[in-house]
Amino acid sequence: INSKLPTVGTTIFTVMSKLAADHQAINLSQGFPDYETNEQLIAEISQAMKSGFNQYAPMAGLVSLRELISEKIENLYGTKYHPETEITITAGGTQAIFTAINTFITAGDEVIIFEPAYDCYAPTIKLLGGLVKPFELQAPDYKIDWEMVKKLFSANTKMIIINTPHNPTGSILRKQDIEALIKLTKDTDILILSDEVYEHIIFDGEQHQSVALYPELAERSLIVASFGKLLHATGWKVGYCLAPEKLMSEFRKIHQFNVFSVNTPMQAGIANYLKSSNVYQEIPVFFQKKRDYFQELLKQTKFELLPCKGSYFQCVSFANISEEKDTDFAKRLVSTVGVAAIPVSAFYTQKIDNKVIRFCFAKEDSTLEKAVEKLTKL
Amino acid sequence: INSKLPTVGTTIFTVMSKLAADHQAINLSQGFPDYETNEQLIAEISQAMKSGFNQYAPMAGLVSLRELISEKIENLYGTKYHPETEITITAGGTQAIFTAINTFITAGDEVIIFEPAYDCYAPTIKLLGGLVKPFELQAPDYKIDWEMVKKLFSANTKMIIINTPHNPTGSILRKQDIEALIKLTKDTDILILSDEVYEHIIFDGEQHQSVALYPELAERSLIVASFGKLLHATGWKVGYCLAPEKLMSEFRKIHQFNVFSVNTPMQAGIANYLKSSNVYQEIPVFFQKKRDYFQELLKQTKFELLPCKGSYFQCVSFANISEEKDTDFAKRLVSTVGVAAIPVSAFYTQKIDNKVIRFCFAKEDSTLEKAVEKLTKL
Ligand SMILES: CSCCC(=O)C(=O)O
Ligand SMILES: CSCCC(=O)C(=O)O
Repeated sequence: INSKLPTVGTTIFTVMSKLAADHQAINLSQGFPDYETNEQLIAEISQAMKSGFNQYAPMAGLVSLRELISEKIENLYGTKYHPETEITITAGGTQAIFTAINTFITAGDEVIIFEPAYDCYAPTIKLLGGLVKPFELQAPDYKIDWEMVKKLFSANTKMIIINTPHNPTGSILRKQDIEALIKLTKDTDILILSDEVYEHIIFDGEQHQSVALYPELAERSLIVASFGKLLHATGWKVGYCLAPEKLMSEFRKIHQFNVFSVNTPMQAGIANYLKSSNVYQEIPVFFQKKRDYFQELLKQTKFELLPCKGSYFQCVSFANISEEKDTDFAKRLVSTVGVAAIPVSAFYTQKIDNKVIRFCFAKEDSTLEKAVEKLTKL
Repeated sequence: INSKLPTVGTTIFTVMSKLAADHQAINLSQGFPDYETNEQLIAEISQAMKSGFNQYAPMAGLVSLRELISEKIENLYGTKYHPETEITITAGGTQAIFTAINTFITAGDEVIIFEPAYDCYAPTIKLLGGLVKPFELQAPDYKIDWEMVKKLFSANTKMIIINTPHNPTGSILRKQDIEALIKLTKDTDILILSDEVYEHIIFDGEQHQSVALYPELAERSLIVASFGKLLHATGWKVGYCLAPEKLMSEFRKIHQFNVFSVNTPMQAGIANYLKSSNVYQEIPVFFQKKRDYFQELLKQTKFELLPCKGSYFQCVSFANISEEKDTDFAKRLVSTVGVAAIPVSAFYTQKIDNKVIRFCFAKEDSTLEKAVEKLTKL
């Protein structure tokens, strides 16, 4: 057997969540809430099953859900995605990203990603014989110097993957970033894959810079979104992809042979819940409180906080605490201090030693308190 | 944009189910039940959500479900698949098949499939630059002549995909088929992908010839199974893949970047339900009755029945009724007679005109009665 990914093991999330369980540590590593999702939402899913939504959904997803997405996107960002041809429900954000890359990348194509980067981009590109062109961003603010990005362009540049709000750093792209990206890619055939799974988790009054705000960029972009993040239910694995018809029709050819369709009662229940909930208003407020509280608590520790403008991740520098590599520090943290975090070097293809770890703060206040109590001992 | 699948449209299932809806026809095309799934099972899923099974499942699936699968397979087929390393829960059978092919097929590899074949095999192989080597089976019994299959072997043969009970024909592989396959592939590195999603829908006292009954074959095979088919809930998209550790570890590398994990409450609810149900005993009895009843009803029509030994599909020849191609006949059937079926030529890569269509009989008796009443008018 020739391994297609010989150097890949299980993802850092699997590794750290397992270590957290083994050491009965507080798990602030993998990104998921430790509190309950909404009761009404659960009731809607149950009702959908009782009402008979148990057989194959249409390949592109339930029309009712696609229509609600279309309305939301048009209201918030001004671009109209047609439910029939430009929106596809996916088995989570990851499946949308995997399918998008599979649809457009072939051997020799180059894909620019910004590191630290969510860990599925690079291996998926490599799987297809594509070349990963990482652009390294630096703590503390992980700003993109677009003039430098331009130097990565070649005749083979096929795709650029952006991610705002950004996992793992909590940074966000600003209007000027998107404008620079538009300028740089104008008159090229470069596709944009925009991972916006944390679009509603954004702080301090900032506006999420969705690609859907910029028609000239949207026309050659695929946008990925996630209901798991929006609804505090990461295990439900329902997300979606938006793209103009010429891209979406190709995406669907792959999607239909990958998963064919996505869990029907989840789609039906989510659609019904969205109709009567204020979730789009509530989520940013809910997470702003969490972030503020966690940042306040962390002041009791020796960690240095990095800026967090979006997502439910707070990065910290431990340079004041230890000389260790972040992977060693994270292992010691989970086994002896009892708190699991993600070493940010896991999000780089190159070796890096910048002494930053990531905490997930989508947790009960009491969990955050207990974790910080342990962390103060460092 | 270069299309990776330039000749592919939406699948025949999407096409026919849409035509059925447009014409308000009785839909015996796409394979899914039109009756309710078990109330107790639905209650288990609801309870799982209320009990907090809403965040990411482990990448390979919930341990409780994997353990039950392991026990079942060992009890029924004698091979032990270790839950920790040899079983992975997938987002339906299709995702398992797509991931298995993606894991092992690279450009130039040849894959032998038996046609008519389920429609996702060939495009997935082609997507990877693999070569489809179709072996054509003939109505009425679609028997495999293994000596002839051998002629398709080359130094590049990487995989053989088998499927029993067989979709679309309802034929099954017998002990002598598997023994011939073992003999043919002994001392080769050829992998077997065994699509067994209809394993529990088998008739007339036949035993399902799972690859898991044959250790020397199982050690280089991946087996795909489906809870959607077992539990009358095709829209839940929960299936699994079994393989020895050396294959499964590679499968999981791709799986984790494709979907990462599968819907958690569905897994938890299915596991709880399986513990207290007799579903493995009930399903073959339930479907034997359906098949017998549908066959009895069809005697009132001019169709000639092909043998059906497994799956919930009944193929019929319409050679007595019309000279049309099956695609034209199926279109006329849905639009003027009001019954949707699948033209079996859709399951061949080569053009074929054998005047066979497929009906799904996983339907209420009253649905089957109404459909046959319409079909008698032909
Ligand atoms: C798919 S598991 C990872 C969850 C997540 O998005 C993260 O922790 O970064
Ligand atoms: C994934 S849609 C097709 C369902 C099915 O298995 C069939 O109708 O053959």
